[in-house]
Amino acid sequence: MKNLRREALDAHKKYKGKLSVVSKVPLKSVNDMNLFYTPGVAEPCKEIAKRPDDSFKYTSRGHTIAVVTDGSAVLGLGNIGAVAGLPVMEGKCALFKEFGGVDAFPICLDTQNVDEIVSIVRAISGSFGGINLEDISAPRCFEVEERLIRELDIPVFHDDQHGTAIVCLAGLINALKVVGKTAGKVKVVISGAGAAGIAITKLMLKYGFKNICLVDSRGSIYAGRPGLNKYKKELAKVTNKKKVKGGLGDVLNGADIFIGVSCPNVATKEMIKSMADDPIVFAMSNPDPEISVKDAKAGGARVIATGRSDFPNQINNVLVFPGIFKGALAVRAKNITDKMKLVAAKTLAGLVKKPTANRIIPGVFDKGVADVIAKAIKK
Amino acid sequence: MKNLRREALDAHKKYKGKLSVVSKVPLKSVNDMNLFYTPGVAEPCKEIAKRPDDSFKYTSRGHTIAVVTDGSAVLGLGNIGAVAGLPVMEGKCALFKEFGGVDAFPICLDTQNVDEIVSIVRAISGSFGGINLEDISAPRCFEVEERLIRELDIPVFHDDQHGTAIVCLAGLINALKVVGKTAGKVKVVISGAGAAGIAITKLMLKYGFKNICLVDSRGSIYAGRPGLNKYKKELAKVTNKKKVKGGLGDVLNGADIFIGVSCPNVATKEMIKSMADDPIVFAMSNPDPEISVKDAKAGGARVIATGRSDFPNQINNVLVFPGIFKGALAVRAKNITDKMKLVAAKTLAGLVKKPTANRIIPGVFDKGVADVIAKAIKK
Repeated sequence: MKNLRREALDAHKKYKGKLSVVSKVPLKSVNDMNLFYTPGVAEPCKEIAKRPDDSFKYTSRGHTIAVVTDGSAVLGLGNIGAVAGLPVMEGKCALFKEFGGVDAFPICLDTQNVDEIVSIVRAISGSFGGINLEDISAPRCFEVEERLIRELDIPVFHDDQHGTAIVCLAGLINALKVVGKTAGKVKVVISGAGAAGIAITKLMLKYGFKNICLVDSRGSIYAGRPGLNKYKKELAKVTNKKKVKGGLGDVLNGADIFIGVSCPNVATKEMIKSMADDPIVFAMSNPDPEISVKDAKAGGARVIATGRSDFPNQINNVLVFPGIFKGALAVRAKNITDKMKLVAAKTLAGLVKKPTANRIIPGVFDKGVADVIAKAIKK
Repeated sequence: MKNLRREALDAHKKYKGKLSVVSKVPLKSVNDMNLFYTPGVAEPCKEIAKRPDDSFKYTSRGHTIAVVTDGSAVLGLGNIGAVAGLPVMEGKCALFKEFGGVDAFPICLDTQNVDEIVSIVRAISGSFGGINLEDISAPRCFEVEERLIRELDIPVFHDDQHGTAIVCLAGLINALKVVGKTAGKVKVVISGAGAAGIAITKLMLKYGFKNICLVDSRGSIYAGRPGLNKYKKELAKVTNKKKVKGGLGDVLNGADIFIGVSCPNVATKEMIKSMADDPIVFAMSNPDPEISVKDAKAGGARVIATGRSDFPNQINNVLVFPGIFKGALAVRAKNITDKMKLVAAKTLAGLVKKPTANRIIPGVFDKGVADVIAKAIKK
């Protein structure tokens, strides 16, 4: 780890960050300048002034998105502020380009006020074809996303929520095949009720899971529990219908699936042992999972997934966000709908022809994943 | 012109705009991902959280600027709005890269409120190493620039003001050599008291011109004239000290230099004839100058410059803005000072070894101009 620290710092310094903005047009002659700068550039301006939608035809907007953060929940580092989040945002932009061919630019906002975030993103949205929200803490992230979706006519997507939910669901679809169970009949426990936990729950319900119990730092979530924000309250109506109370250990008893999007080491070998036969364990806290792969195995987990690249079944958002935006931009979708998210999850799952315990999800470097997702989204 | 229109639209459509955001780092292996994305990316984040200045070391910020507009004064097209200005901003960004190696990204703001513009640019400034303001109408542009210079610790530069002023001054320095006159002794008339006219006047005064008369749509500007905004008022104190009143024709009588940064065809052959011997005429309204080159010649102009590429002596900002930012970013200048602007103008003028009436300024495609400017700025 110490070497990684040094290596990562050196590499970032050596390359002077990760992004470059380049010209796609020739600017080598007077004629080039006449066409792409004055006086020729006035022509697309005039067209766009008449029909703003023509901005998608004559500018880079149609293939360019903003990766926007307020630095309030960067990686597992917490609220480190906008500028400190820039390396992550640049990384995300680099991945958008590398995997999806989508041009992405990092916008770090030096405010954590919801109204200001919304009005700034709205004000700059004319430069972009889509907005990827990133590392904004819950529950503010929900309001920011809801309002921007309502106010903008370009797709807005909070990857920490929906990217995670889609890849997680794709993995679950195949994990269920491996253990021979069906979504409608399994009992699911989700540790963590932040951006990812809430989005995963919603998408799983849409897919057909019926029995989900969310657990936050105060224990299981049920209708009427004190200390629920409006997003947890909403989910309390449709999850944990038996109102089971207690901590993670209590609710995991007899569960078929454990999903961790919370903190390192909250689960134990004994808890996994208390689960139903053939437990499925997705311990996605990164870099340190909710339970180590070793302990999960020792507890009898049949299928194990993590966020890490050094174990099988890495649940990595990069499998979906480049394809999602590639597809959405191609057809000028106004929104990323729930239907599109479900299609993306099913498509991603379908890329693994014969799921096994050690392969429920494509690898990050598998060729063509983004293209297949984009194609599915377009439909 | 009709063909240019069609060609320009087709070219913009064909290339799908002018910019692309690319990754500078390899993302082909698990090790690459570990270094540039999770978990390695956390390391520069942590360093920047401790020392925000390290953002210039570990991210692309140090070589990246924003080209910001509110769409209120785009080219000669006027207030066409932010999105309609995007082709120009992309063009500017492409020129920054092509001529200065500076990464530039267009930010089109859907607000023309000064407070909002300032607070938005301040909020997003963490992603950038500098701000190039563009096509914001006067007098709002002055306040926007002043406040941002005060509030940000990265250079803020309104190119329509200072880029124009620097190139214009460079041309004048050489034009004076051609006619054998000196700055302190000539009488100058400037048509247009917007962003460019005011900045040109200020820089010329700093350089050593003593006798300047500004003319706006209501005639010559003098202390006490009704209808002056605070920027014109300020200049009225140090220009036109004899308080000459009247229109452009009146004040041009006996002048040595005419500078046009206003509207097409405001000057006539007769007016040029009324000027002093060996008149210098800079008619920079674009694409149609304040007086045609033909008429200026017929009126006896000895040195003629325009904004156009199809005549000698093109006064084109692209000669300075790439070098200015290249130099300022290289030394992490907090501001573009008047001293730097004067140095840039003198350096640019100095690139023409033996000025003649047909060559007072380097050509846009002359090699290495930006580098020489950048080097001078660094000092």
